[in-house]
Amino acid sequence: MAVLGRGVVATAEPIATADDVGLVRGDGCFDAMRVLGPDAVVENLDAHLIRFAASAATLELPFDADAWRVLITDAVASWTPAPEAVLKLVLTRGAESTPGVPTGFLTITQLDLAAMRRARAGVAVRILSRGYASDAFADAPWLLGGAKLLSYAVNAAAKREAARRGDDDALFVSADGYALEAPTAAVVVLRDGVLITTPPGATGILDSITVRQIFAGAAAEGVRSRYELIPAEDLFTADGVWLASSIRGVCPVVRLDGRDLAVDAAWSARVAAWGGF
Amino acid sequence: MAVLGRGVVATAEPIATADDVGLVRGDGCFDAMRVLGPDAVVENLDAHLIRFAASAATLELPFDADAWRVLITDAVASWTPAPEAVLKLVLTRGAESTPGVPTGFLTITQLDLAAMRRARAGVAVRILSRGYASDAFADAPWLLGGAKLLSYAVNAAAKREAARRGDDDALFVSADGYALEAPTAAVVVLRDGVLITTPPGATGILDSITVRQIFAGAAAEGVRSRYELIPAEDLFTADGVWLASSIRGVCPVVRLDGRDLAVDAAWSARVAAWGGF
Repeated sequence: MAVLGRGVVATAEPIATADDVGLVRGDGCFDAMRVLGPDAVVENLDAHLIRFAASAATLELPFDADAWRVLITDAVASWTPAPEAVLKLVLTRGAESTPGVPTGFLTITQLDLAAMRRARAGVAVRILSRGYASDAFADAPWLLGGAKLLSYAVNAAAKREAARRGDDDALFVSADGYALEAPTAAVVVLRDGVLITTPPGATGILDSITVRQIFAGAAAEGVRSRYELIPAEDLFTADGVWLASSIRGVCPVVRLDGRDLAVDAAWSARVAAWGGF
Repeated sequence: MAVLGRGVVATAEPIATADDVGLVRGDGCFDAMRVLGPDAVVENLDAHLIRFAASAATLELPFDADAWRVLITDAVASWTPAPEAVLKLVLTRGAESTPGVPTGFLTITQLDLAAMRRARAGVAVRILSRGYASDAFADAPWLLGGAKLLSYAVNAAAKREAARRGDDDALFVSADGYALEAPTAAVVVLRDGVLITTPPGATGILDSITVRQIFAGAAAEGVRSRYELIPAEDLFTADGVWLASSIRGVCPVVRLDGRDLAVDAAWSARVAAWGGF
């Protein structure tokens, strides 16, 4: 673990005081990316720092990219290389007793490779309502759409609900019936040779770095892609559906709400490779 | 400050580790009530513990009411009495590295009496969309409706937005146009001699202890009350509108979206007294 303004510290040391609003109000943001051994390469660091800065801006929190880069360099240098780890950056509004002093820290945690491999081989997904219409975040910046917030209790609860129903993950659907995103992943659909994902913005979903990578890789091979609202019903007749995230990678959805989906191994391999997995 | 399993500790001591999901995912709940000097009376402790337990149950977190009572007694005994303080109870799912061990702690913080008095004299309020329809939480327990969550970033952002527009507080309105609640208070409306508040349940709002107190006090004096969806437009023609919470008390809304509202000092005094203020 490493703390902004202090440097690398012991992992078990408590970091947040009882009046840190990151702790008591989820008032802060985070971002996460992989670190790959043996050379301790931080994947897509620039893109993640840009998104982390955007989340901070949405919350009106000050952000010092250079300080984060130094902290990350120090933390990675003291890391014992493993095949895959997750680097998580966290920024909170800080303690109420010291207004205007954000709390910033990072952790590097080894990934459970067996669990990652299982997910990358295929996931069973349950559709759950997110409660919002697909345009709920338009003109409502206080709803903090698109920011990777520490206020993730609903995302965690949706994952528990999916597990209770025997599935691996959830897929949020809007009140008006469109696929939004999974609690910690974006959704990518293949239809008639075109890759489609849900647009950020009015939907409030996160702008996925992995999806942007997939689309760039696809474009380089002449495969078209677009951002477009996807009726949840259309997922059952798609030529392929994947959950995409920076940590877990590109996971083919093999079952949705208990119904088997079409899975094309060749396409899955292509999409995973474009996403860096 | 006091920590479940440890007792009273120094206030400034950090309490949450970097992998506490209360900190990094807002995965936990809280409750808050007043402590009044000089006799250190904890207001409505039983009702708050019942609601805190309900929030924990919604999150599927274990809850030991007896342990909390002991911790509260110890913390209050070591407290230096002040006219008004806030006792906050916090329960998180705990550290990822030690699954199944929740983090529980409490703080007692002196209230800013001048700010409380100003609010109790009258607040200017800005209507802001909450994005959800008024029935979004029906049959969707994973949305965690009614739980007092640590995931409060949107509530904090709505308060900042209201302040930016020159107002004291926000009032959330549903996508279908009904008054829901303020970020940290319930709304009570007087119309034709009847007190009305928004129903919890499908709306996802918190079940307000102060509103229940107000309604009980009103009933004892023969004033009727009911839970009913309130079209936001109706607030402008109501005979009185109040924000009610356990800490700030009963605050008459004197201006809403820049328009002056009817304020009846006699009714405000009655409603405040029923609420315990």
